[in-house]
Amino acid sequence: MTDGSKIRVGIIGASGYTGADLIRLAAVHPQIKITALTANAHAGQSLGAVYPHLSALGLPDLVKTDDVDWSQTDAVFCGLPHGTSQEVISALPSHLKVIDLSADFRLRNTKTYAEWYGHSHRAPDLQSKAVYGLTEYYRDDIAKADLVACPGCYPTAALLGLLPLLSSGVIDPTDIVIDAKSGVTGAGRSVKQANLFSEVAEGIHPYGIAAHRHAPEIEQEVSKIAGQDVLVNFTPHLMPMNRGELLTMYLRGAGKNAEAEARKALVERYRDEPFVHIVGDGDVPATRHVRGTNYCRVNVFADRIPGRIIVVSTLDNLVKGSSGQALQNFNLMFGLTETLGLEQQALFP
Amino acid sequence: MTDGSKIRVGIIGASGYTGADLIRLAAVHPQIKITALTANAHAGQSLGAVYPHLSALGLPDLVKTDDVDWSQTDAVFCGLPHGTSQEVISALPSHLKVIDLSADFRLRNTKTYAEWYGHSHRAPDLQSKAVYGLTEYYRDDIAKADLVACPGCYPTAALLGLLPLLSSGVIDPTDIVIDAKSGVTGAGRSVKQANLFSEVAEGIHPYGIAAHRHAPEIEQEVSKIAGQDVLVNFTPHLMPMNRGELLTMYLRGAGKNAEAEARKALVERYRDEPFVHIVGDGDVPATRHVRGTNYCRVNVFADRIPGRIIVVSTLDNLVKGSSGQALQNFNLMFGLTETLGLEQQALFP
Amino acid sequence: MTDGSKIRVGIIGASGYTGADLIRLAAVHPQIKITALTANAHAGQSLGAVYPHLSALGLPDLVKTDDVDWSQTDAVFCGLPHGTSQEVISALPSHLKVIDLSADFRLRNTKTYAEWYGHSHRAPDLQSKAVYGLTEYYRDDIAKADLVACPGCYPTAALLGLLPLLSSGVIDPTDIVIDAKSGVTGAGRSVKQANLFSEVAEGIHPYGIAAHRHAPEIEQEVSKIAGQDVLVNFTPHLMPMNRGELLTMYLRGAGKNAEAEARKALVERYRDEPFVHIVGDGDVPATRHVRGTNYCRVNVFADRIPGRIIVVSTLDNLVKGSSGQALQNFNLMFGLTETLGLEQQALFP
Amino acid sequence: MTDGSKIRVGIIGASGYTGADLIRLAAVHPQIKITALTANAHAGQSLGAVYPHLSALGLPDLVKTDDVDWSQTDAVFCGLPHGTSQEVISALPSHLKVIDLSADFRLRNTKTYAEWYGHSHRAPDLQSKAVYGLTEYYRDDIAKADLVACPGCYPTAALLGLLPLLSSGVIDPTDIVIDAKSGVTGAGRSVKQANLFSEVAEGIHPYGIAAHRHAPEIEQEVSKIAGQDVLVNFTPHLMPMNRGELLTMYLRGAGKNAEAEARKALVERYRDEPFVHIVGDGDVPATRHVRGTNYCRVNVFADRIPGRIIVVSTLDNLVKGSSGQALQNFNLMFGLTETLGLEQQALFP
Repeated sequence: MTDGSKIRVGIIGASGYTGADLIRLAAVHPQIKITALTANAHAGQSLGAVYPHLSALGLPDLVKTDDVDWSQTDAVFCGLPHGTSQEVISALPSHLKVIDLSADFRLRNTKTYAEWYGHSHRAPDLQSKAVYGLTEYYRDDIAKADLVACPGCYPTAALLGLLPLLSSGVIDPTDIVIDAKSGVTGAGRSVKQANLFSEVAEGIHPYGIAAHRHAPEIEQEVSKIAGQDVLVNFTPHLMPMNRGELLTMYLRGAGKNAEAEARKALVERYRDEPFVHIVGDGDVPATRHVRGTNYCRVNVFADRIPGRIIVVSTLDNLVKGSSGQALQNFNLMFGLTETLGLEQQALFP
Repeated sequence: MTDGSKIRVGIIGASGYTGADLIRLAAVHPQIKITALTANAHAGQSLGAVYPHLSALGLPDLVKTDDVDWSQTDAVFCGLPHGTSQEVISALPSHLKVIDLSADFRLRNTKTYAEWYGHSHRAPDLQSKAVYGLTEYYRDDIAKADLVACPGCYPTAALLGLLPLLSSGVIDPTDIVIDAKSGVTGAGRSVKQANLFSEVAEGIHPYGIAAHRHAPEIEQEVSKIAGQDVLVNFTPHLMPMNRGELLTMYLRGAGKNAEAEARKALVERYRDEPFVHIVGDGDVPATRHVRGTNYCRVNVFADRIPGRIIVVSTLDNLVKGSSGQALQNFNLMFGLTETLGLEQQALFP
Repeated sequence: MTDGSKIRVGIIGASGYTGADLIRLAAVHPQIKITALTANAHAGQSLGAVYPHLSALGLPDLVKTDDVDWSQTDAVFCGLPHGTSQEVISALPSHLKVIDLSADFRLRNTKTYAEWYGHSHRAPDLQSKAVYGLTEYYRDDIAKADLVACPGCYPTAALLGLLPLLSSGVIDPTDIVIDAKSGVTGAGRSVKQANLFSEVAEGIHPYGIAAHRHAPEIEQEVSKIAGQDVLVNFTPHLMPMNRGELLTMYLRGAGKNAEAEARKALVERYRDEPFVHIVGDGDVPATRHVRGTNYCRVNVFADRIPGRIIVVSTLDNLVKGSSGQALQNFNLMFGLTETLGLEQQALFP
Repeated sequence: MTDGSKIRVGIIGASGYTGADLIRLAAVHPQIKITALTANAHAGQSLGAVYPHLSALGLPDLVKTDDVDWSQTDAVFCGLPHGTSQEVISALPSHLKVIDLSADFRLRNTKTYAEWYGHSHRAPDLQSKAVYGLTEYYRDDIAKADLVACPGCYPTAALLGLLPLLSSGVIDPTDIVIDAKSGVTGAGRSVKQANLFSEVAEGIHPYGIAAHRHAPEIEQEVSKIAGQDVLVNFTPHLMPMNRGELLTMYLRGAGKNAEAEARKALVERYRDEPFVHIVGDGDVPATRHVRGTNYCRVNVFADRIPGRIIVVSTLDNLVKGSSGQALQNFNLMFGLTETLGLEQQALFP
């Protein structure tokens, strides 16, 4: 196959960490040709000026989004900050298939969106057409979609662990406690004192307690399966590491053998999924086992309190939690093998 | 005051991290003269051979515990591994005041001890006399004790946050979820593959799920206050950092204004405590704010689920969680100012 | 192409970090089928028991080296500790092409070997046939070799930076100071106190001062080009990170425009090399730009002392410094495209 | 002694890391009462708002420098950024003893200053009166000084290792190569992309190659002792850790037994110095052995090239490299015991 038959891809917002990780994967994806990279604040610069590690790939220079001739592009990944994607995507030509990595089109309820993001949605029509890009659960819709809203990193890890337990009635949907831990790349490349090395290294702390925007996203999907409005207890913590996130979910079983039932539900649901691994009985998911990969590793443990279980779910926030899942969806949207370009194994150590 | 009037102190098990941190503090404590350091596996070596950073203090060489002439010593800190302290301490002369940093004398119930530590207690008489060294709660008993069993690091952080809420009836004692995160020094200096830098750095994972020995210790004290047998949900995680631990405790309030009531209970209880700080409303406890210090910092947050609260408690596992609290108890046992030698401020960054 | 046409590969010593990184790359190499994994101390275990992150690849269980039926294998990578490869490789059937990642066959002079490794070489015949696997310099010999001795990680980084300057006479070969810094994976997975997280994190120190075994290896190649016996000043340092090494080389120019001449020599030499990048004038090589990749990035800077220059060379010690270069050599030995399976871009951040 | 008899101290520029570390030490110094803390950008805030770990000390709120009534203060520490101290200090009342931690008054030659800092010195009169605060070498002058210019962190580590070798003629002053490695706190708390956690963690790189402002400072003192103008080769590197710096200095001996002579010169020079430790023969200085302390640890090693030696010098850049040395000078200026308030031992691990 020559370059001419590849799918031509543009990346909007290429200067963030999400953009960089997408380029890392897309640049060696066998069916992708990167034709445009945009980063308004860096327009005119080479990619290597912003990301030296990507300097030798021979990719296009960074330009302004408005300056791209989209007629030469088939698909667009949009890695802009939350709140800014909706207007940019609205303005794109309709022939483009769009995979959005921001939060703009994740929430189905415009009221909920307004409540959490502080403004009315600026592209409600588009929002109603967007498909929620949790690949393992919306595969058919994604394959037909023109706009896919990739889930947040925390919701991906949470939902992959929770949904089979909810749909099979193994757990009580009203008593879900999610303690989440994430590496610093989750905060992006924005320059804030709180993200300086010396503020983060050798220490941990919670943030966004009871107020993190991923809570309503988790609740949206949990409520849908549970058939009732559910609030979840969700508290993220910042870890002194670059990549990876791990969720420890404290759950109350509905029946007597919650652990066995939960294990059965998880194993059955994900038996044929290439990217979700229920690890062996007693094996402990760890972020380092998924570093740099598109895998999510999950396990369930009996709690010492009878009837309760603990589900641990881990993924790389920049890959399965962002760019990798975006590529997985891209593969589906273009009829490619779902795993194409996502075969990387974990970089451990 | 001359050296002659100082209290003569021996440290048993000086080659572990707990021992090293005790020496760090004791060596500059104005009322302590270190007269003996034991480490059976390193007997005959200088302290600097084991801990180069302590080489210039002019302290005694390491010897075998059996070789010490205890007649020249007033007090002993015992930093041996769990299960080995009980016999060593039993064999010490009775004039010595003993502060034990192991788990051997923490559990009041010998049956519980046997269940969690896999053998019958070898000094049950001594166990019944030991005082649980959670300073802020057993101050009077500690002052009169001959043997103090310093709490584990996790129980210290957990109990300082929980006890005022239990004693004031603010929370439901039957629904306590404790997600704990700790730096690697908590695992001690023992040489295991799991603690190698390359196994730990840039990653996190839970361990001892539903089976950590600090659970029964927390439950012992919680049950005592609650007036009923309580099981708690306790799951620790290993963090890629040296020191510090942070507990995020998910609790169900008993009444309607749980957050306000909890804050009031905590502030009132610790108003005059030198080492427990309830930080300002909305301020987030972080391990880096207590690094190297004997402080515990606590705060309470309303959860988004009505009626639930989140209590965050943090301390340095080697100081307030171990050597520092041991020194605090030592000060009490010898009638010294409780804060003596513990005034260090956090090493941040 | 079906599996049947792939090259059948065995990995001896699969339980070390070098083995794990080789598996990471080989498992997704389009022309490799892994047929045997040996690890004597772990024989009978699944690969996932030793490396959970590789558990889902469906690879063979670990066995003893002596138990492998090598008739079903075409090539062997040997990742055993130094000093143990020579006997194992001697005993392998002659149809196997062998790529050795240990130091056993790197030194051409058996006297030098004995001096640095403390024993006479046990396979001197084989040693004389081995080709030094610095791919960019011994490409033709490697393509024809039956046994390739892959260079050490430090020598690879040093020689890629130095050789063009020596062969073009730009620098004085008698005044070479190499200050090297490496991540902890360079020490392997062996369980030593010195490699514990808490001994390494948040600190740096030199090691093997004036006595590191990579010095004679660097000198062997430098002397060959310089046409005289050369001693180099080589001092490695341990860094609190997993992967990556960076060498800062302080050199005395032979002529007046050493920096410009050096830059010219480097750029010309590596213009067509896929894995050695001379970065842009003024750009600073950094380990994070090569993390997880087979690239070496090099640059040269004028020193403020007239006539002196500073050459900085960086690579991932487990990839270009070990497993990646081994695969690069494998590709050559089997007539494959040299870059096959080595296209991964840096995992940054 | 009551508070009334303590020395009243102000800290200008209290919001930087240097300021924070000074407060950490000064707040528990037995002869210091902190009476003023200035930070123009944070005026009106509590200290705890900027540094939560210092919130419980009961210290004054942050104010603008111009708003302080200096009549109630005896001494001032000035931790402002380079280039801004000179005007602020010029404007202070003359009764104040001033310890400056910036670079403004370190260079004796105003031409050199202008060349490296890009502007003429704005307080040349004051500059000529300032004493260079390398305590171990200018003790008598410091005791009598009104203005002490504390050395940079790198010059402190370099000069403590080099000066005895130069003054005793052990090394050739014209062939000094200094490879320096520093933790990230050396960059201060300024908010730059390059200092974000994700840009720094798990990686290393050199910076300021041949252009770092500490080079002329080292050269000033080296030249003075050597009796000739000397240029040194000085290249710093950024390490993924908070605190600590280590200099590996590659030197050419003047005589035949350079290592033995160097060891003798160092041991004799520092025998009675409380804060400079020449560690045991063969012992390796490591940053972790000085973390949080005012110690500098030095050792010398024979190189494998005959006649050459390697001197390794390490200190905590924020303590002996900044705030600690400042306090050491303060003690001298006020006739106090030089070690007062500086007895902290290393926080290891």
